[in-house]
Amino acid sequence: MRFFSDNAAAAHPAVIDAIAESNRLDTAYDGDSWSQCLDAAFSELFETDVRALWVATGTAANCLALATLCPSYGAILCHRDAHIENDEAGAPALFTGGAKLTLLDGEGAKLLPETVEAACARVRKDVHQVQPRALSITNATEYGLSYRASEVAAIGDAARRHGLGLHMDGARFANAVAFTGESPANLTWRAGVDALSFGFVKNGGLNAEALIFFRRELADEAVVMRKRSGHLFSKGRSLAAQLLAMLDGDLWMENGRKANAAAQRMATAAPDRLVHPVEANEVFLRMTSDEAAALRAQGFDFYDWGVGEIRLVTSWNSDDTAVAKLSAAIASL
Amino acid sequence: MRFFSDNAAAAHPAVIDAIAESNRLDTAYDGDSWSQCLDAAFSELFETDVRALWVATGTAANCLALATLCPSYGAILCHRDAHIENDEAGAPALFTGGAKLTLLDGEGAKLLPETVEAACARVRKDVHQVQPRALSITNATEYGLSYRASEVAAIGDAARRHGLGLHMDGARFANAVAFTGESPANLTWRAGVDALSFGFVKNGGLNAEALIFFRRELADEAVVMRKRSGHLFSKGRSLAAQLLAMLDGDLWMENGRKANAAAQRMATAAPDRLVHPVEANEVFLRMTSDEAAALRAQGFDFYDWGVGEIRLVTSWNSDDTAVAKLSAAIASL
Amino acid sequence: MRFFSDNAAAAHPAVIDAIAESNRLDTAYDGDSWSQCLDAAFSELFETDVRALWVATGTAANCLALATLCPSYGAILCHRDAHIENDEAGAPALFTGGAKLTLLDGEGAKLLPETVEAACARVRKDVHQVQPRALSITNATEYGLSYRASEVAAIGDAARRHGLGLHMDGARFANAVAFTGESPANLTWRAGVDALSFGFVKNGGLNAEALIFFRRELADEAVVMRKRSGHLFSKGRSLAAQLLAMLDGDLWMENGRKANAAAQRMATAAPDRLVHPVEANEVFLRMTSDEAAALRAQGFDFYDWGVGEIRLVTSWNSDDTAVAKLSAAIASL
Amino acid sequence: MRFFSDNAAAAHPAVIDAIAESNRLDTAYDGDSWSQCLDAAFSELFETDVRALWVATGTAANCLALATLCPSYGAILCHRDAHIENDEAGAPALFTGGAKLTLLDGEGAKLLPETVEAACARVRKDVHQVQPRALSITNATEYGLSYRASEVAAIGDAARRHGLGLHMDGARFANAVAFTGESPANLTWRAGVDALSFGFVKNGGLNAEALIFFRRELADEAVVMRKRSGHLFSKGRSLAAQLLAMLDGDLWMENGRKANAAAQRMATAAPDRLVHPVEANEVFLRMTSDEAAALRAQGFDFYDWGVGEIRLVTSWNSDDTAVAKLSAAIASL
Repeated sequence: MRFFSDNAAAAHPAVIDAIAESNRLDTAYDGDSWSQCLDAAFSELFETDVRALWVATGTAANCLALATLCPSYGAILCHRDAHIENDEAGAPALFTGGAKLTLLDGEGAKLLPETVEAACARVRKDVHQVQPRALSITNATEYGLSYRASEVAAIGDAARRHGLGLHMDGARFANAVAFTGESPANLTWRAGVDALSFGFVKNGGLNAEALIFFRRELADEAVVMRKRSGHLFSKGRSLAAQLLAMLDGDLWMENGRKANAAAQRMATAAPDRLVHPVEANEVFLRMTSDEAAALRAQGFDFYDWGVGEIRLVTSWNSDDTAVAKLSAAIASL
Repeated sequence: MRFFSDNAAAAHPAVIDAIAESNRLDTAYDGDSWSQCLDAAFSELFETDVRALWVATGTAANCLALATLCPSYGAILCHRDAHIENDEAGAPALFTGGAKLTLLDGEGAKLLPETVEAACARVRKDVHQVQPRALSITNATEYGLSYRASEVAAIGDAARRHGLGLHMDGARFANAVAFTGESPANLTWRAGVDALSFGFVKNGGLNAEALIFFRRELADEAVVMRKRSGHLFSKGRSLAAQLLAMLDGDLWMENGRKANAAAQRMATAAPDRLVHPVEANEVFLRMTSDEAAALRAQGFDFYDWGVGEIRLVTSWNSDDTAVAKLSAAIASL
Repeated sequence: MRFFSDNAAAAHPAVIDAIAESNRLDTAYDGDSWSQCLDAAFSELFETDVRALWVATGTAANCLALATLCPSYGAILCHRDAHIENDEAGAPALFTGGAKLTLLDGEGAKLLPETVEAACARVRKDVHQVQPRALSITNATEYGLSYRASEVAAIGDAARRHGLGLHMDGARFANAVAFTGESPANLTWRAGVDALSFGFVKNGGLNAEALIFFRRELADEAVVMRKRSGHLFSKGRSLAAQLLAMLDGDLWMENGRKANAAAQRMATAAPDRLVHPVEANEVFLRMTSDEAAALRAQGFDFYDWGVGEIRLVTSWNSDDTAVAKLSAAIASL
Repeated sequence: MRFFSDNAAAAHPAVIDAIAESNRLDTAYDGDSWSQCLDAAFSELFETDVRALWVATGTAANCLALATLCPSYGAILCHRDAHIENDEAGAPALFTGGAKLTLLDGEGAKLLPETVEAACARVRKDVHQVQPRALSITNATEYGLSYRASEVAAIGDAARRHGLGLHMDGARFANAVAFTGESPANLTWRAGVDALSFGFVKNGGLNAEALIFFRRELADEAVVMRKRSGHLFSKGRSLAAQLLAMLDGDLWMENGRKANAAAQRMATAAPDRLVHPVEANEVFLRMTSDEAAALRAQGFDFYDWGVGEIRLVTSWNSDDTAVAKLSAAIASL
């Protein structure tokens, strides 16, 4: 019974079907009929004209976005615990040509506008210090908190005041949308977001993420850099088809809701242990190593999060029985 | 009836089946049971211990290999018409940190040892000139010629004499093996190759290539750079499963043979028009634009190759009837 | 008696005096009173508002200029024998983040507009091929030819038609101005040049070159990259003072004329041996290795230029007697 | 009366004389007779065989050193207030190809071995996190503290245990040697330092620093990168001559002692205001903005260091009278 990570879950059957169905000769790269539908499909979802590119990994999506927003000699503000800082092996530096990540603090990996303001104020406006040029926030955050639209908008205002491009790492965007009930538009471009890594892999996709540009001209550069970084697939239709399958009938929302619901059940079972509010599909619990060992002995698999904490992650296909069992097991510790 | 490129063909059904079959929760990245089989499976094929990494695109495979063989301040020798020079958007520079491609000539995109020797001799041994550190050859070449094992070995000797790491871009390695009848081992490490981009996508795969390191220690660096360039898939099992399906029962060889056979049929139909010998699955023909237009009017699709030439590419599932029709149509021009 | 290279010559005494004279406490970096004069001084020389930055080496000047004109994923067109290709250790790739040098042919290292046009035409307008974004010419060229203003203008037109930024490597700009009798303005911005590496080191400077931006906004990025590449000197006044000393009383022109005159004397002595017309301070002569040895035995020092050719370079302080002796020695071979 | 920075001071007359004296034709780059003496001169000073390269700026020295010690995908540990992090415009990322700076805390910009150990322990040993490969310390630190040899040795032990190359930014190495009374050898290679940026510009040089490699093989790569970053001067003799002049008669030590003595005088005048012990040529004082304004009104020039602090920097030629006046002025605030 694995609660290790949503990125290890199986893909949704509809996604596998879409791959199989798109498996026929068509124009290579992104000239095929599936890829050609992406702009329209995502524009409808976001209620504005967007450019939508498939990429295969979240790291690629994040870093291509950042590379359009920040020059090699600029800095990207982000949370100290951001995925781009901690889990991408320095990829942002590769894609941007060496841009610096300036690390900010914030409860639950969430940034506040005043933190952004203060960070900008600390930088001398001279050639000796790396000037901030972009800001990246994660929604839902690495600790499972979801920004509300108003919170993103406040961050977006700060970004604009300081001339920062705004990127949202939406590896768990579905979970944030499902939790907040906000529209995708309100959580992004209406709040000042320039580019969104719209994650599908953690939400039932196999190997397709959408990179969405609300400032559409940025996509011109991104398509070049996608190729230059080896991310232009010749049979790109298999990625486009996955995305379309996830959008179809709002499967992405349905999956996000299921994962969130499973997380809530576990949160309910252990309200006193919660390290962070549960606003997506991650549950961080205070737990001694003995307790953790006891759970593992019962067949549960999960991540130790430093000393005295564990992380449980649910997914679109978290098994109901397993969730119930784990909830019970935690409650009875 | 498309003869445009093998990279646009459908994937083999066995590959799609393997993706579906591997679609279950397992350890993320390359910790799953499929990925863990790759070293052994390719070691058996190559009759020596190798490290085998999945990557999704040929560009990624080539550039990761080159980045392990050449420092940022070194040069990579390659043919003027090499894919890494002409069709990868400068990706080698991104992955290596700016290494230079030094372009060499050679009939049919094939390099000769003396050309390599001469290129090395031209470089002054000082800090002002970029020193060659690696050599990349393509087998089969971009013009559909296949290196024999003895030819690779002669190149390998030249590389060793000048301290060059040797990379083989095997986007069409299956076609070269099928045409020459040489063993994979003889065409690679026994001939001095350090790293091979073993292509599957053009040969029936969907989005999985194998990056093979014969100097196994190079793989340690490559796995870091794979992640850093955004090419480490969380559900990597879907790539590993494709490779294993292609190796199973030597499907890769069967596919290569089929594509080669289709090319030979067309070559036989137009012996006087051949620009290059047909030693893989590509056929380059002299043809006026009027003739090309006539073929297109009959429903055939292909690439103009400069002025007065066309390129026909066959694949593992080139339609027999279409091949016969095109052969006849060319013969009767 | 050394005719090896102008870059090894002594600096002009006025330059050394200027360094000594500027050796007093002032604002660091480029905030001092000397540095603050550069824009005005060069604007007057060029008859238009320019931004002028000191840098210490020609490589730095060239590469900073190119980095403002070409993105990491673009190509820079230049002659096959250009200094940026052959003698800068790959520095353009470092400064631009991996831009590609596309090598063109041309008599005497001089480019023609039609060569530039043809090079642009050869590139497919897709994401697979690196798109040209800049063009670099050297004046005087690496073989001592000088572009006339009309020739630069024709190149400039071609550059503009294809959206290429135009850089001039003027390591021997003084020699070109002196030879052609054209104004600095006519040879540069009036002919479409965006940025000029205005060389002084080969012309009597110690370690100061001027990087001139005619598109002034480019300088904003260049000053950041100058610092980021370690080229912002804390006592920059010593560089600025050198440039001002060279401009003072047109010392740079006087030095250029002297070097050219010495070259002409040697050219006159060996009209039948000339490989290229002598239009600056370099003389390329056909010469057997026996003849070269004979000259060396008489105490002359110079560069073999491949087989059967030698290169003689004069400088602002080439010794008249040595020049006369060498001219006589060549004439009597 | 300026106490703004030592990097704005005049160069020592002996340095200017050396430049003038070396101003004659010699072999270009570092083939001249001055440059050829550096290895021997510094080997004697350090009591072991070293390779010594001239470079013109501290940023270049630091970043060339780091680029030999850390691959593009590695991390460099340093103090949060290190010059390489705060004042070099991201140059380490340019030179290393994107290595990450991991920021550590420590009183007075000084690192402790246990801090290094803890930082290494925090990094998961997987491909997702950037692995530490180098460690950079500054001696004297950015806050004017000097590491003792035993402290460096403890750091060096920690570095070795974790496979980190050890770099010392010695922009004020002379001040540290003068203050501690330790030998250059004890403060560097005997304590595990692999490469030292030996600063001269802040200590009376004009534009020459020495980059010292105790692991001599690293210099082979550094000389290539020096050229590739535009830092190989054609008249390098002017840099080498400066270094030799500074070594001659231990002028560098004499200058360091003078600067330190001036700082001590001011420290003595304001013992209660000291933010840090004064162990080099920098004095950080607590001071209200009114007090600072009062000093400025008396003609003193210095840096505000955040709110409520100022920084005074002395140099080899700090004027005795000015130092006395400022000391008195502070004492009577």
